[in-house]
Amino acid sequence: MAPNLDSFFKTVDDNAEHFIDRLRKAVAIPSVSAEDERRPDVVKMGMFLKEQLEGLGANMEARPLGKQPGKEHLELPPAIVGRYPAKKDDSKRTILVYGHYDVQPANLSDGWNTEPFKLSVDDKGRMYGRGSTDDKGPVLGWVNVIESHQKAGIDFPVNLLMCFEGMEEYGSEGLDDFIIAECKPGKFFADADAVCISDNYWLGTEKPCLTYGLRGCSYYSIEISGPGQDLHSGVFGGTAQEPMTDLVRVMGSLVDTHGKIQIPGIYELVAPLSKEEQGLYENIAFTMDNLYESLGSTTGIFDNKEETLMGRWRYPSLSLHGVEGAFSAPGAKTVIPAKVVGKFSIRTVPDMEPHEVDSLVYSYVQEQFKKLGSKNKMKCHLQHSGKWWVASPKHWNFTAAAKAVEKVWHVQPDLTREGGSIPVTLTFEQATGKNVLLLPMGSSTDAAHSINEKLDRRNYVEGIKLLGTYLNFVAEEPME
Amino acid sequence: MAPNLDSFFKTVDDNAEHFIDRLRKAVAIPSVSAEDERRPDVVKMGMFLKEQLEGLGANMEARPLGKQPGKEHLELPPAIVGRYPAKKDDSKRTILVYGHYDVQPANLSDGWNTEPFKLSVDDKGRMYGRGSTDDKGPVLGWVNVIESHQKAGIDFPVNLLMCFEGMEEYGSEGLDDFIIAECKPGKFFADADAVCISDNYWLGTEKPCLTYGLRGCSYYSIEISGPGQDLHSGVFGGTAQEPMTDLVRVMGSLVDTHGKIQIPGIYELVAPLSKEEQGLYENIAFTMDNLYESLGSTTGIFDNKEETLMGRWRYPSLSLHGVEGAFSAPGAKTVIPAKVVGKFSIRTVPDMEPHEVDSLVYSYVQEQFKKLGSKNKMKCHLQHSGKWWVASPKHWNFTAAAKAVEKVWHVQPDLTREGGSIPVTLTFEQATGKNVLLLPMGSSTDAAHSINEKLDRRNYVEGIKLLGTYLNFVAEEPME
Repeated sequence: MAPNLDSFFKTVDDNAEHFIDRLRKAVAIPSVSAEDERRPDVVKMGMFLKEQLEGLGANMEARPLGKQPGKEHLELPPAIVGRYPAKKDDSKRTILVYGHYDVQPANLSDGWNTEPFKLSVDDKGRMYGRGSTDDKGPVLGWVNVIESHQKAGIDFPVNLLMCFEGMEEYGSEGLDDFIIAECKPGKFFADADAVCISDNYWLGTEKPCLTYGLRGCSYYSIEISGPGQDLHSGVFGGTAQEPMTDLVRVMGSLVDTHGKIQIPGIYELVAPLSKEEQGLYENIAFTMDNLYESLGSTTGIFDNKEETLMGRWRYPSLSLHGVEGAFSAPGAKTVIPAKVVGKFSIRTVPDMEPHEVDSLVYSYVQEQFKKLGSKNKMKCHLQHSGKWWVASPKHWNFTAAAKAVEKVWHVQPDLTREGGSIPVTLTFEQATGKNVLLLPMGSSTDAAHSINEKLDRRNYVEGIKLLGTYLNFVAEEPME
Repeated sequence: MAPNLDSFFKTVDDNAEHFIDRLRKAVAIPSVSAEDERRPDVVKMGMFLKEQLEGLGANMEARPLGKQPGKEHLELPPAIVGRYPAKKDDSKRTILVYGHYDVQPANLSDGWNTEPFKLSVDDKGRMYGRGSTDDKGPVLGWVNVIESHQKAGIDFPVNLLMCFEGMEEYGSEGLDDFIIAECKPGKFFADADAVCISDNYWLGTEKPCLTYGLRGCSYYSIEISGPGQDLHSGVFGGTAQEPMTDLVRVMGSLVDTHGKIQIPGIYELVAPLSKEEQGLYENIAFTMDNLYESLGSTTGIFDNKEETLMGRWRYPSLSLHGVEGAFSAPGAKTVIPAKVVGKFSIRTVPDMEPHEVDSLVYSYVQEQFKKLGSKNKMKCHLQHSGKWWVASPKHWNFTAAAKAVEKVWHVQPDLTREGGSIPVTLTFEQATGKNVLLLPMGSSTDAAHSINEKLDRRNYVEGIKLLGTYLNFVAEEPME
């Protein structure tokens, strides 16, 4: 039986302007975590969030996370944690939700059409502003859900645990240890029955999705060095072995134009494609035009949607990101760089174990370098790695969300994976041992991290309904 | 008959401290041509030079070169031209000398051991300071030669034409046209019988050299583009053809670790090595240890001096300088660059015609890119090129200089070429139609363009003698 949500929906609609105003206040706080001088604004934004929730009766705490590693003069912004209702109701499920209150940097001069820290709503309901969709809209979504239940006079269906951080756009400094500690018995997040994260996007612009998988990422450096210092190519060209020559040859051996990774053994680590899985892709609301629009070109690897989606979600990829230490400015400089560091990463998928990938990478790169017969020195190392994540979309956490999508959007959601990684997802899964759901609010055109970031009014308002409806269905779903 | 130069030498020795003081005053003027805000200092340095020479009775002019291209708010520093004696003596040869009065940027914080714009003489006679060797020492050398002749009461042996520029370290903006115009009949440099440039260095630290050849340089870009904007490798890795993948593959096909250029036809353009030339290299004062010391490593291509010198002077080389548009900072960024520009250059030698090199490069790069089967777009173009230069070392200009070296340094100079290019050399040769000699004052350890640039007191003082003695022998050499 679907819960009767009519009065909740009506309350959300009636309060839409109030909720947009709340988002406007949040966007006006330039909580840029990457800029040291904005740190007070990040903290201010955390406090704003805490006060909004306290005003609704939630039990909130601002938890210090210590000094920022490498910038010890800076205090990390606090984790804002909370519980609503303030006192736990043991008869209800407990859902832990995560979001972040910091944003990417933004300056009008970057090419924004409107002031980035002023919410600007156009006549089509596009609400422009830094953080509108990533992730202030979704975070305030939870606040608005609580307020709407109160105003509608509906009993809140679950115990809600909240974890909002202020360093997501700068590597979530300090958060992993905090989550792991707070998921231990007796701690703040100990009794979570499932986790919901609203910090990603629909695959397109029209159809909602639930996301149950993310690729991992293993990021490597290849450092090649020889001369004691940068050399003049006139004086030394033709007499010195050049590190850059070696580097491009090794980098050029890693992957081909068609995305095929050249490192032997990599594809053997990938979980085979079952017939059942193969069938899933054709029903996903995605077209090659969607790809071309987001690429800004037609330079895709595959010419059909199924292979494209599999290339993004369920197969590994290798990208060459750049070279550190070589000449990288416009113009012409006749330098022979003494030490160059090539950067590349592999997006990993089930069942690739990161340490197995590392071994294959190291031995292949060594072998390719050895083939060159160079006197230069080569070192290959892992800069960082994060594992892939795949959840069961049959869990009640997902079925509740699917029903909520149908209720709000009148369509069955696509079950999607994503090519990128959201490391906190895996942390929550491992720390709680519970199912984690990614439940996006915004759409593929929201331009998170870019200029002119926006959230559509429709996605915000219906998104509030979606989050609230999800919690109501969560309360009803049978155990798996 | 060698001229009797004893009183000239004694006068130079007696005035050494005065000449060092002149260099001190020059070094104190931070005439950095690359820094807009230093432009008044560059002009000041030009005026200092003009006044010093006027004080000795030379006929000097500061010639405007117009606005700086691309920075039209900046006036180019003038070319300081002059004639000494002020009135031409038609019975004497006319020698045109060139130098530059601007310097490379320098800041104490770059790692200098002493204030870069304060001449600091240590107890071994090393005179540290920006511009000491490049090129204020040699330029003032000519001033000191004039003064020493006056003080010694010796008739000046030649008509000296002077051309000193203030933009050499920033591409000699505006100079080529000026030289070409002033070499026309009736113009300032019209009656030069030969040219002497003192703006390079000995091959080592002990043995002087005369330089009769320079390699040319053709500098290319390969631009590969696909997506409309930079992409996130999580979202697009495995679905988009990546320009960086294509670029490293094309760049990796240009040259191998051992410096062998892979472009078919390049080596066919190179003048064959005659038996006579082959014999020249073994007598040059140069050792593999000299190479290793300047490399700061033992990562040379060849293990013997002859091949190393030929690799530097008489064979082409190809260096990969870097990539514009890719990730080049420290750390890890998971970007797929949308447009990358690879930079490389080929050092050219006789008889490579630059336009023939261009054709070979373009068609090879096209072919390599085509092999990839990529949907991305590729453009290869020439950024700039300067031709190689080789003079006849049997000309009286060189034999006079060789005799001067023997007289001052008591050793026969090495006849050397250089791997780098000094484009003005070719301009003077072409504009005057006369022999051009490179007559260095400083040694290989002077660190021009680096931190702790210096000129040894010995090289400065004996260098003044060398320049003066050269002019005296020039006056005596028979026609070729």
